[in-house]
Amino acid sequence: MAVGELIPLEEALERLLAELPAGSLGSEAVGLEAAAGRVLAEPVTAEEELPPFDRSTMDGYAVRAADVAAATEERPVRLRLAGEVRIGEPAGLRVEAGEAAAVPTGGALPAGADAVVPVEWTRPAGERVDFLRPVEPGENVAARASDVRPGQLVLPAGHRLRPQDCGLLAALGRLRVQVVRRPRVAVLATGNEVVPADRRPAPGQIRDANSWSLLAALRAGGLRGEYLGVSGDDEEAIRQLLASALARFDVVLVSGGSSVGDRDVTQRAVESLARVVAHGIAIKPGKPALLGVSAGKAVVGLPGHPVSALTIYRLLVRPLLQHLEGARPDWSRPGLRARLAGPVRAPAERDAMVSVRLRRLAPGGRAEGAPAFEAEPLRTSSAHLSSLVLADGMIRLARGARLEAGQEVEVLPFDD
Amino acid sequence: MAVGELIPLEEALERLLAELPAGSLGSEAVGLEAAAGRVLAEPVTAEEELPPFDRSTMDGYAVRAADVAAATEERPVRLRLAGEVRIGEPAGLRVEAGEAAAVPTGGALPAGADAVVPVEWTRPAGERVDFLRPVEPGENVAARASDVRPGQLVLPAGHRLRPQDCGLLAALGRLRVQVVRRPRVAVLATGNEVVPADRRPAPGQIRDANSWSLLAALRAGGLRGEYLGVSGDDEEAIRQLLASALARFDVVLVSGGSSVGDRDVTQRAVESLARVVAHGIAIKPGKPALLGVSAGKAVVGLPGHPVSALTIYRLLVRPLLQHLEGARPDWSRPGLRARLAGPVRAPAERDAMVSVRLRRLAPGGRAEGAPAFEAEPLRTSSAHLSSLVLADGMIRLARGARLEAGQEVEVLPFDD
Repeated sequence: MAVGELIPLEEALERLLAELPAGSLGSEAVGLEAAAGRVLAEPVTAEEELPPFDRSTMDGYAVRAADVAAATEERPVRLRLAGEVRIGEPAGLRVEAGEAAAVPTGGALPAGADAVVPVEWTRPAGERVDFLRPVEPGENVAARASDVRPGQLVLPAGHRLRPQDCGLLAALGRLRVQVVRRPRVAVLATGNEVVPADRRPAPGQIRDANSWSLLAALRAGGLRGEYLGVSGDDEEAIRQLLASALARFDVVLVSGGSSVGDRDVTQRAVESLARVVAHGIAIKPGKPALLGVSAGKAVVGLPGHPVSALTIYRLLVRPLLQHLEGARPDWSRPGLRARLAGPVRAPAERDAMVSVRLRRLAPGGRAEGAPAFEAEPLRTSSAHLSSLVLADGMIRLARGARLEAGQEVEVLPFDD
Repeated sequence: MAVGELIPLEEALERLLAELPAGSLGSEAVGLEAAAGRVLAEPVTAEEELPPFDRSTMDGYAVRAADVAAATEERPVRLRLAGEVRIGEPAGLRVEAGEAAAVPTGGALPAGADAVVPVEWTRPAGERVDFLRPVEPGENVAARASDVRPGQLVLPAGHRLRPQDCGLLAALGRLRVQVVRRPRVAVLATGNEVVPADRRPAPGQIRDANSWSLLAALRAGGLRGEYLGVSGDDEEAIRQLLASALARFDVVLVSGGSSVGDRDVTQRAVESLARVVAHGIAIKPGKPALLGVSAGKAVVGLPGHPVSALTIYRLLVRPLLQHLEGARPDWSRPGLRARLAGPVRAPAERDAMVSVRLRRLAPGGRAEGAPAFEAEPLRTSSAHLSSLVLADGMIRLARGARLEAGQEVEVLPFDD
């Protein structure tokens, strides 16, 4: 398979995303519990105010702040008790000058009052109450509409819903929201040497590991991939499987057979159905990756070696899926700073992803501001999964780069 | 409700975890796809070797390395072509001295050969092949059992399965694994002022937002909580709900009413069923939290204020759930370094969690090694959810601490 000029990773991703508009999946209405982790398809504007009334934030007494302005422990201010606000009910009374009303946390502030004095700063005095400290107007009160005003944009389209966002939606009574449909993803393995993982390989054969890595990676991102099984290197069979998959799924992942014959067959099958926007990526491992688009759908050919396939998933497929959902990140998390425990190098013509194992350094043994971790590069071949199992993350090296032990690197952890 | 002496956060968590042994949930067998993200209940030892035969990692020619030791572009070594290995089949031939055999990537190395020369380093010469470069013995070969040896411990108990781990299990034919049962969690709201979120609150009432925040937080951790609804402050009713929940769930989260009456009622209901190991945490917000244990089950009383409830979830409930699953973290991710955009302070007697919004700093505007983010503290009251919706994470301040703009802080992002 002639890969030709290698394409830089970022350029390959840009070419792919340019063909697939963000948020093009359409939307669906879901209940609030299922909405956690989903991306809003439309902005949410409040139809109500929060809180819906002036609420006390403390157990104490509602007062007019001016009445207790001079209160001290030595010279308390004594006010008449006008009554008691009950939780969950309208205040039902009015606080006049010289009066106070008992109010629980969350209780409605009575008309006339403008602040709450916590019970700890008061002392009972028969039918009256002594106040030992002053409060400012508005103190210990969550004013009506101070959290959310009616008509306020509370969550923009493209926002991925976190727990607090779901809480706010519930507070506003919005128990159904319109979210972006999740991408539908299919996973297909090819290769005459590859057998389904539930079969015992005959001599010369191996089990399909890639599909299971990819299905697990999808699941880690909250998606359920559909496994289409293993196809041998029959071009027409692969073509038909791909055509059927492109009709039903938004993204089709084909982890290729590793031999030149398998790759050729898969490539031709993809080319007959999709426009190839990148083939041959300047990254190690992962060079043979192939990116195609067909009528708004994406087909990604992943290398057969398991480490290469997962690397391409992480670097190209995951950003593709996020792009399709149209999530707008306000900020993106940086990698983790670490000190290299040994030398690493990239080939002259490709960037390299190097698997590393992390070890937390003792705080005593490092300088102020120095990385908290040591990153041990793992000797790994792209054909060996066990090194990736030992690894905690990867570092990226620019083509031709050579770093020595002790240098600082940025690790992309596998757990994020 | 007398909270008494406040308990430091870490001590409260330790007291709780000490009563609930790690990994005490028991285990269950699950299929490999469902195993992604789960914690292994027992170590996995390989019963087979990987790869199962010496495999070529390149398209090329299997040779005896000694035969091509002197090969150069100028003086190629010419070897006789003994045949061709087909992918997915046994090699079916032997390479003698002076011979080579064509082999695809992933193909079986023929007996007699000990290395593979990539096709790019060769030139066809009729029935023979010219080799232009030497190879070392073992070069471009993934030797039988070099990835995994039979009997090797490939994954320890307590390991949370990542995509690569699932790939390795598939390669070994292990399509079912024994994983720790996930904690069963119930979510109950109390408070006479609280109505279910699908109801319109009457004057003095508010909707139950906490339960939806908590259900979403559980879901972000891969768990489905069960919502038990809203109970008023009837002690016997709460007691019965809790007793029934403790029989069916491992962890019961009760987000309390915020008034003193509600808290007292919830506290007495919890005390009648569980041993309270901590009540009153030295953290702001979150002070009223209550931790109880009953026959290996945990009941956590969360404050009624929504910001406080989510803070306690993050600081106490999430570590509790991870502890119950018995996952052994090899390393824990540090917070994100940021430069404070404004001053923050903690009260004298409690640590404080301060919500912040993150902004990536332009690389040009900062010194080498300086934080990549600015953290803007959000003026927030624990009663206001909208500030948490604006926030990207929290910083923790020690009791009495006062930090100024420009100081470096560690942010716990909400997205991890």
